[in-house]
Amino acid sequence: MSEFRSKFLDVYSLLKSELLHDPAFEFTDDSRQWVERMLDYNVPGGKLNRGLSVIDSYKLLKQGEKLTEDEVFLASALGWCIEWFQAYFLVLDDIMDKAVTRRGQPCWFRVPKVGMVAVNDGIMLRNHISRILKNHFKEKPYYVDLMELFNEVEFQTASGQMIDLITTLEGEKDLSKYSLPLHHRIVQYKTAYYSFYLPVACALLMAGENLENHNDVKNILIDMGTYFQVQDDYLDCFGLPDVIGKVGTDIEDFKCSWLVVKAVELSDEKQKTLLHGVFSEYERKSYKKLLKSIEVHPSDAVQAVLKSFLAKIYKRQK
Amino acid sequence: MSEFRSKFLDVYSLLKSELLHDPAFEFTDDSRQWVERMLDYNVPGGKLNRGLSVIDSYKLLKQGEKLTEDEVFLASALGWCIEWFQAYFLVLDDIMDKAVTRRGQPCWFRVPKVGMVAVNDGIMLRNHISRILKNHFKEKPYYVDLMELFNEVEFQTASGQMIDLITTLEGEKDLSKYSLPLHHRIVQYKTAYYSFYLPVACALLMAGENLENHNDVKNILIDMGTYFQVQDDYLDCFGLPDVIGKVGTDIEDFKCSWLVVKAVELSDEKQKTLLHGVFSEYERKSYKKLLKSIEVHPSDAVQAVLKSFLAKIYKRQK
Repeated sequence: MSEFRSKFLDVYSLLKSELLHDPAFEFTDDSRQWVERMLDYNVPGGKLNRGLSVIDSYKLLKQGEKLTEDEVFLASALGWCIEWFQAYFLVLDDIMDKAVTRRGQPCWFRVPKVGMVAVNDGIMLRNHISRILKNHFKEKPYYVDLMELFNEVEFQTASGQMIDLITTLEGEKDLSKYSLPLHHRIVQYKTAYYSFYLPVACALLMAGENLENHNDVKNILIDMGTYFQVQDDYLDCFGLPDVIGKVGTDIEDFKCSWLVVKAVELSDEKQKTLLHGVFSEYERKSYKKLLKSIEVHPSDAVQAVLKSFLAKIYKRQK
Repeated sequence: MSEFRSKFLDVYSLLKSELLHDPAFEFTDDSRQWVERMLDYNVPGGKLNRGLSVIDSYKLLKQGEKLTEDEVFLASALGWCIEWFQAYFLVLDDIMDKAVTRRGQPCWFRVPKVGMVAVNDGIMLRNHISRILKNHFKEKPYYVDLMELFNEVEFQTASGQMIDLITTLEGEKDLSKYSLPLHHRIVQYKTAYYSFYLPVACALLMAGENLENHNDVKNILIDMGTYFQVQDDYLDCFGLPDVIGKVGTDIEDFKCSWLVVKAVELSDEKQKTLLHGVFSEYERKSYKKLLKSIEVHPSDAVQAVLKSFLAKIYKRQK
């Protein structure tokens, strides 16, 4: 549990209030209310792991130095940008996947009167990130890097979603199109960049680092994100709906899930128990491999950031 | 007809090819083909007025100086960014409006196998703009201004679309919610910023101008864009489908169209002939007023840019 959780939550209210009074648009009362309800429904209701990890990572990079109020605020604002980013993709992905529930409530587009307006709400969520960055980071030397970082990760996430969608179109006819390298590529782009690399990259930029010098960190985080998504595929099928907050439908939807990829690979046996075993073995090996690659990193602070991520996800139940 | 049309079209092929080989993503063959087909279907098929007007405006700002190859290329690239921007919103708006045809062909989401993948394609189109800007403008002194310009205009366009959608939800129950000030606000944000202000703002940035010094230009262009949209509302109902390339459905869809707003205002008479007359009168008055506000502008070059815009739209049939 992050020590910054309650401060982080306060920052949400402040950012929301700024967005609802953005001088670049003359709100009507109806539209201001709409945006507020849309934000409250979609942005703060997740586990907030991604957002909080910006502050936690920044603190580790500062090696125990006490953070100023301003630093906590700025790291929180970047953390919220990632939560906004996630909300943006979840709102739109749920439309594309015809999903039913999300975080234990109906998907936003299924709320009465919302429907396809949710497409525009998704765009609005993305635009809020640019507004937040402009409001709070315009004078920072890393402002351009921050904009480019969010742009690039957004491009990668949308590209990952694209191959996932195209693969699913093909896979409905022929499951054998699915392979481990393809699964790996989807996961890397669709999930790992924004969930694992983006928070740490934000913290690195705030700490004055040049991201071009941290390709090794990026690669480890991408591997960690891949491992995380395999867990997710596993939990979509075998996790308890009450614990994971949704009824998984990957298999019914012909998604290129790790389980399906593995089942295709092992298609003679295909017993559920075997898949369980295969998953445990995958989990153990990934952990060992990630730990090894972390421990060769020259900086103790960076090692601490990466290890704290790994600890949070190893053997998770949700 | 712009003298730059054929050079402009060449730039499309080059930009497309760069995007299809973007090193930030490892394309599969299927996904590269998908993006190429999606771009060809949605980006270059319009009138290209917005895109071409960047080069035309830039030339006028340079007061007859011969443009270098590089200047023509860069102005064309920015022109294409606006065409990409337009394609982005059209693809998504057609989904939200459940539209049938666009530019004389089925809307992209209605093409077999596309469906809701079109939502992600819309995102992809927006992301391409950031990639083009990064590829060709990163070293320019106005790079940040360019990114912020596209971000701000995107935010305004999405905000205009939001009040349009919310108003339509309300208007289905009660047409009297529609008023001229509300219509004006929707049009200003949803259309005028990106169609009229954005091309000239791009040209001004390329010419080394600070946009903060050009609020008067912005205001005139927003008024011109408003006038343009009233024409559009009129043509949606009274234009010939073969000429305008679509069957307008604003009235059936309860849209907050200028015709509906005026009909509500004149609800005792409501004859079609009267509306025709009201429109002609509106057209004449707007033209006079715009011309007057242009002629007080201190710069002849800027006057020339604004007059060339006005000439293009006055009494248009499509």
